[in-house]
Parts: sequence; C-alpha cells; structure tokens
Amino acid sequence: MELKALSVEGFINETGSSSPAPGGGSIAALNGAAGAALIEMVASLTIGKEKYAAVEAEMKEIQSKAHEMKAQFLAYIDEDSAAFNKIMAAFKLPKDTEEDKKARSAAIQEATKGAALVPFKIGELANALLPLAATVIEKGNQNAITDGAVATMNARTSVHGAFLNVKINLGSIKDEAFVADLNAKMEAIENSVDEKEQALLNKVNL
Amino acid sequence: MELKALSVEGFINETGSSSPAPGGGSIAALNGAAGAALIEMVASLTIGKEKYAAVEAEMKEIQSKAHEMKAQFLAYIDEDSAAFNKIMAAFKLPKDTEEDKKARSAAIQEATKGAALVPFKIGELANALLPLAATVIEKGNQNAITDGAVATMNARTSVHGAFLNVKINLGSIKDEAFVADLNAKMEAIENSVDEKEQALLNKVNL
Repeated sequence: MELKALSVEGFINETGSSSPAPGGGSIAALNGAAGAALIEMVASLTIGKEKYAAVEAEMKEIQSKAHEMKAQFLAYIDEDSAAFNKIMAAFKLPKDTEEDKKARSAAIQEATKGAALVPFKIGELANALLPLAATVIEKGNQNAITDGAVATMNARTSVHGAFLNVKINLGSIKDEAFVADLNAKMEAIENSVDEKEQALLNKVNL
Repeated sequence: MELKALSVEGFINETGSSSPAPGGGSIAALNGAAGAALIEMVASLTIGKEKYAAVEAEMKEIQSKAHEMKAQFLAYIDEDSAAFNKIMAAFKLPKDTEEDKKARSAAIQEATKGAALVPFKIGELANALLPLAATVIEKGNQNAITDGAVATMNARTSVHGAFLNVKINLGSIKDEAFVADLNAKMEAIENSVDEKEQALLNKVNL
C-alpha cells in the first residue's frame, strides 16, 4: 500500500515504529506537501475577493503551481521510502563468487545514488516553494497570512530534512563527481534558505 | 469524519482547498505529530542494541513519552479545526434583539478563547519535544541521528505555527488578563526555541 494512501494517523504511527521507513526523507516530503497545500489555500482564499482583484491573475498562477507541487511532494513520500528499500534489497544480493560481489557492489552504488537523488529533488522543490510563500504573504489575503508563515517553515524544514538524507547517502557513494555536484548544489540552497525564511517570518508580525 | 482518519493525500488536498480548515493550526499539530513519531522511531531503533545498552532505560522512557505525545498531537489536528468551526457557528447565532446580541457576543468570546487555547497547548507540547529530541540525538542510535534533526525542526515549526494561530485569536479577545497570561507564556517559549533548535542541528554535522 502506498504511504500517502494511509490515514494520517496510520502514517504517523508507521513513522513512529521501529521500521526505518518512512523516515526523515518521507517526513521532509510531507513537510513540502503541507507547505504547498497551505500556499495553495492562501491563494484560493485570495482569488475572487474584490479587495485583491489586482493580484487575481498572479494568485491563480500560484494556486496552480502549488497544486502541482503538492502532488509531486505526495509522490515523493512514497518514492523516498521505495528508494531506501532498494538499497536494502541490493544488500541482500548474493556475494558467493567474485562476479556476485561485483554485481552486488554495483547494485548498492546504483541504489544509493537513487536514494540520494530523491531527497535532493525534494529539497530543490521545497526551496522553490519560498518565492510562492513570499508572494502570498506579501500580496495575498492578509487574514490567512499566518498560513503563509507556517508554509514557509514547512518549506525550510523540508529543504534541510531532505538534504540531511541526501548527505547520509553521499557518504557511501564512490562516484566523486556525483557527490561533488550534489554537494555544491545543496550548499547554494542551504546558504540562503534560513535567511529567506526569517525575512518572510518577519513580515508576519502579530 | 475526523481529519486524522483521512488519507495523507486526502488531508493534504483538503488543506489546499479554499475552506479555511484545516489550516495552519492543524498543520502545526501535524508537525508536532511527525516530530514525536520520529523521536519515537529513533528511540525504537536504539532499544535492544548492545552498543546502546547503557541508555536502554532512558530510551524506553522516551519511546513511551513520545508515543503518548504523538497521540495527543493527532487529537489536536481535529481539535484545532473543531475550535475554529465553533467560532464560525457563534458568528451565525441570531442578532435580532439586544439579548440575542449579548448572547452572540459572549458565545463568540468563549469560542475564540477555545480557539486560542488549542494551538497554545499544541505549542507548549511541541516545545516539550525538544529535550526528547536532544536525548535521542546525543545518546540514541547514531545511524538515525538525522531523523532526530528533522524531528527538531518539526517541533520548532509546530511551536511557531501554533503560537501564530494563538495570536490571531488573541486579537479579538476582550479578557485582558487571559490575553496577557498567554502572551507571557508564549514569549518565554518563543525566546528560546530557535536557539535550542539550532544547538541541536549543530550536533548533526554531516
């Protein structure tokens, strides 16, 4: 059964169990999904209101983008756990002959790259939520501004949580170019995400 | 139907809809639930391991506490939306006579206090996750340390997200002592939560 098809209670209980999946990567994706949903909600609560007619077109665009990103994050909840399970499966491959060992080692490397790429994509997508959150906070329905703030925090958690899970996997990947490429891309995002988040939270003064 | 009984996908889609509930308060509770679940998981992955025999009793205590807190957060997901709906219901009370108006106004005040207290309790409980997260990060299974880090970020989001929702409601409450009391309690927690979070994240160096 897909994780996203579990009840909220069932999914959270499964997270709390001693099985390693769903773990931090899937929870990072859940954070992204919640952030995208809140942005979509604020845009939806802005559209059709006379007071916000000037930003109607912009809000419709954000609503549509956030809607798609939400679906993508929901898919990542399952993809992250599936990628983790692939590593477990590779470790169980036979290692009786030299040929076995080579094939097993290659399968582990391949699966580990996959398990690094899924949370990398989660973190990249979560970072892309921040400009949308900025627009709904600055121009959207001001009665829902705190929902934009919660979305912003969810996006930041998703970025850091996802990238922590990338880094765990990078530790066992031998392809140095692959590792260097992902590290550089993550560093660029990580260096700015806390500042971007704080700037948005500062706009929601209650 | 209870929100926590919806599928993860259904709950997230409902959040994204133009209906104001579930909103930031319920998402703050979801963040708390995810944080508690991840702490429970790290404790579970520590218990029974020879390497961590010295902290076995402590981990069992954390596992049990986090398990209970997780259930409480799941209940708050629904309580927050129910409290919001009570305000909506109070606003719909008749206001034809002076007596009606008085009763309606009192009902709105009462419902708004309720809608402030639920996220206040969410934020307080989320703050109480941080010492548990600290223990699993410092003494728990080091292979799951990033899950402790994600739990820490979820706890911090839950605190701020919940308190933003308290403050929205405090703005319409006339009982000044009630408002001052909650504001003072929130300030004490808010002043330290970001620092506590950062100190824990700094321990998870990857």
